[in-house]
Parts: sequence; structure tokens; C-alpha cells
Amino acid sequence: MLDNEWGMSRYPFVGGHEVVGKVVATGPQAKRVKVGDRVGLGWNSGSCLCCPQCLAGDHNMCVSGESTIVGRPGGFADRVRSHWIWAAPMPSGVDSVSGGPLLCGGITVFNPLVQFGVRSTHRVGVVGIGGLGHMALRFVNKWGCEVTAFTSSDSKHEEAKQLGAHYVVNSRDSAALRKIAGSLDFILVTVNASLDWSALLAALAPRGRIHFVGAVLEPIPVAAFGLIGGQKSVSGSPSGSPRVVDDMLAFCARHQIAPTIEEFPMSRINDAIQHVRDGKARYRVVLRNDLN
Amino acid sequence: MLDNEWGMSRYPFVGGHEVVGKVVATGPQAKRVKVGDRVGLGWNSGSCLCCPQCLAGDHNMCVSGESTIVGRPGGFADRVRSHWIWAAPMPSGVDSVSGGPLLCGGITVFNPLVQFGVRSTHRVGVVGIGGLGHMALRFVNKWGCEVTAFTSSDSKHEEAKQLGAHYVVNSRDSAALRKIAGSLDFILVTVNASLDWSALLAALAPRGRIHFVGAVLEPIPVAAFGLIGGQKSVSGSPSGSPRVVDDMLAFCARHQIAPTIEEFPMSRINDAIQHVRDGKARYRVVLRNDLN
Repeated sequence: MLDNEWGMSRYPFVGGHEVVGKVVATGPQAKRVKVGDRVGLGWNSGSCLCCPQCLAGDHNMCVSGESTIVGRPGGFADRVRSHWIWAAPMPSGVDSVSGGPLLCGGITVFNPLVQFGVRSTHRVGVVGIGGLGHMALRFVNKWGCEVTAFTSSDSKHEEAKQLGAHYVVNSRDSAALRKIAGSLDFILVTVNASLDWSALLAALAPRGRIHFVGAVLEPIPVAAFGLIGGQKSVSGSPSGSPRVVDDMLAFCARHQIAPTIEEFPMSRINDAIQHVRDGKARYRVVLRNDLN
Repeated sequence: MLDNEWGMSRYPFVGGHEVVGKVVATGPQAKRVKVGDRVGLGWNSGSCLCCPQCLAGDHNMCVSGESTIVGRPGGFADRVRSHWIWAAPMPSGVDSVSGGPLLCGGITVFNPLVQFGVRSTHRVGVVGIGGLGHMALRFVNKWGCEVTAFTSSDSKHEEAKQLGAHYVVNSRDSAALRKIAGSLDFILVTVNASLDWSALLAALAPRGRIHFVGAVLEPIPVAAFGLIGGQKSVSGSPSGSPRVVDDMLAFCARHQIAPTIEEFPMSRINDAIQHVRDGKARYRVVLRNDLN
């Protein structure tokens, strides 16, 4: 968003869409949260509550939804505003500092497990061990699944196992991908890069699904024959609804799941952003506001 | 298969994988059918009953499955052999002549409605009004859905409505496709041709699915962003399991659904095949065996 890679940024730009803080004021119609409550805010900051999606509980797909950092200033700030429905009550088991990245990165990888009925008996692959992928590995491990991590970086193999992977496969090694053909029920793709998609599709078991949460910009070439034989699906999804955010936070508290973060003071935000640009973040950078 | 378009035909080739007839003999292990029963046989002729898919009831995705016309002679014959599990008992409400095309074309478009939980309240599109599509329109109409037919042939508009469509859209008219953006819960693609897939994806409502049963040979370019925003899916599936075939036949008997067919005697098989090659079949050609 800072660099307008998605073509919808407005400048001057105030980023920050994984925010934890305390409620300082509420509007007269606000429900569920009150002044002083510790809450979290993610990608979405407003929903109409009356469109077909909101009525179905899919507030994250509201037709007139507002996003925290699209066309308005985000959470790198003293205060940020949202509709009460998107101010998620933070349970006592979730820390304010490490919990921030759950509100967008976390829910984006947790939500598909709920939406597509991933079961504890499933074999699940996670592609990419970064900001999103490292949380996905922890979630899927505690979900009860057999977990395979896919990474292009051999240096991350050991780390992937510590994060919850039972197996690690090099995502750039087409021969290694072919070896696991027909084995995975669900593959969650958290990367933006283009990979050998046909080998990954072939890695799915019958009824398998490959699911995209990373905004791969090049179109993914999907062969109809590759879907038909094994009743396979290709899909994507955005963040998650308030109800699923609540369930995710309770799941994290119950299983003591937190993102791995590095902390910078807000006064060093430029250093923090450079650290992310350099690909050095392990795995998510959190800014602590030291400016007020 | 006759022209080896899928690269797996064996010559001399005996086609015929939508077969209705009477059981003339059974093996010692056969269950469920006995000599004299009227049965139907489709794409699949054998399943192992013991692989993960068979154990789950997905015999149509058996890892060592046998297909009626792949590597063995099919049903354009006096007799054809199958495992008992694929000899579907024909209910009295389903006619032997018009019922034949249900066993492959019919189940191929009926099965996705079952597999992907299409509900009576859904808005469903059917792309292509041919051998498969015309049956799909009848199924989806009786399923209780709001039905939109997509056809490139203006001459088929009125016919599509008679077959059960509430609306008809020209599938080659990108402006018309854009007009219905965000409206359909399920789009069933029965054609082999390449269309404006991004406009069809955009025609899906949030949580929508575009499903392929036609073997589109060119890869379909899928933009991850086009899937993510609305939690959309792209998928495919093959024929259907014996249990779903049973359910389809009962559904057809209950709702008096039959394919629209043209009948030729087996002695004129070459004329019948030419009729199909000429694109004149409305909508499925049935051969009646006059050779024995």
C-alpha cells in the first residue's frame, strides 16, 4: 500500500492495519466495546451491516465496506477510528504487542481453515514461511493436521519444523513436488511469487483445494483437466469476519499461539520499514508508539 | 475418444459409455444386481472398493479405476462388462432410451450440485446449451434455483427458457456479462471453448464458484485477486459416484426429467456420428441396437 502496488493508495499515506490499543471514545450506537477496553483492528474498519454479505455474517465482504488504510489514515497514529463491529475485543490470553499481526496476517490464514472445513485429519501444505506463513504453520499444527511447509529457502527448513511443520519441501524443486503428488487435502499459498502451479495442483489429493491469500499478480494458468479428475478447487479469500476473528483470538489464547515479532519504537518507523523492505523481518515487525 | 483428442484412446476403438441394458450374467461376487435387471453404465466400469477414495464413497475417483471405453471395448456392442457397483439399477420412472445419456452427461452435471452444496435459494448459471448443458438446465430448475443460461448462439435463447432458464445471457458478449457482475452463486461450465473467464469470474457473487465439467484444453488464466476479494472458487469434477447416480436417477423419476434425444438404429451408427460431428445433435443421440 505504501508503494501503491495494488493501485489503490491515496497520498499522503498513513499505514497501519494491524493495530492494538485501548478504546478512548465510542459513538452513541456502539455495541460490544466500551471506553478502556483493549481491542484490535485489522484490514476492515467499517461494514454496512445490511447488505447480503453482512446479513450472512460475512462483514469482511461487505459491498460498501471501509478498509483501515484505503482512502483514510490507518493505525500508525495516536488514534484510529473504526466501526464498533471491527474493534475486536482482545482476550486476556493474547498479548498486545505480539497479538497485533493476528488482526490481518493471522486472520487471513486462519479464516480459510474455517471457511473451507479443514479437518484435523487433513494433510495441509503451507507455501511460504513469512509473515503470514509462519502463523499458518502454528495454526494448522494446533488444528491437528499433518503439516507440510513449502519454502524456496533451504535455510528455513529447520525453522519451519519448529513452527509446526512435520515435513518441509522446497517449493522451487519440481521433482520434489512431483514426489508428493496426490497427497495433500489443502494447500494454503501465502506468497506473491509465481511457482510451479501445475505441480502444486498435482500435489493435491482428490477433493483437494489450493487456496490463495497472497496476491499473486500474474494470472495462474489452471488446466481444467487438472481440476476435473480429482474434483479439485482453486480459491482465494480476504481477511475474515468479526466472528471468525473472535474465534481465532480464543484459539490463540487456548493454544498459546502468537506471531514471532521484532519490535521497533514508532520513532524509528523508517528503520522498521527498511528492515521489512530488506526481507529481514522475522517474521512481523511491530511498532510501539513512543511518540505521545 | 474416437479421435483421440484426450490422448488416451486405444484402437481398434469401441465407444459407448452411456449404456442401458439388461443384465445377462453376473459373477459370483456380484451384489445389488441380478440377471434380468435393467441397469445403466456410464464413464466408470470398475473400482477397487479399497482405496481411500472408494472407502469414502468416491468410487468415481478410485486410484485404480477402470473406465468403460479406456483400454477396453465400450457399449456400442451386444454386451458390455462392468463391476457390479457401476451397473446402476434403473428405476421404473426412467425410460431406457432417453435415460441413457443420464449415465455420463447427466451425472457429470448433477454431481457438482451435490458435491458443492448448491442450494435451492442459489442463483445458478449454466454455460453452454448442448448435450450436458440442456440436462443441467432441467436439473437446476427442478433443484429450485434461479437459473441463468449462457449461450453463444442467439437461436437457442427461447429453447434455453423452455429447458428451465429464467434468464439467458450471450456468453460471447462481455458487456452483458459485466452487467450481471456479482450476481451468481454457482456457474457450471459445460463447454470446451475458451470464453471471457475473467468476466465470468466477476459474474460470481461473494462465496461463488465457477465449476468446469467441460474439458477446456487451453489453461484458464485465473487472477488471484479475482478470487480473494469475494472468496471465490474455481473447480472441476468427473462424473459421479454410484450413490450419487442412484440419487440422480430417483430425482429424474420424481421430476420427470429426461434428456432430449434423437434416436438412430445401431446399423446407422456412422450417420449418427456424422450428425454429432456436424453439430446438429439436439441434444444427445441414442443408438438402439438393431443388430442382434
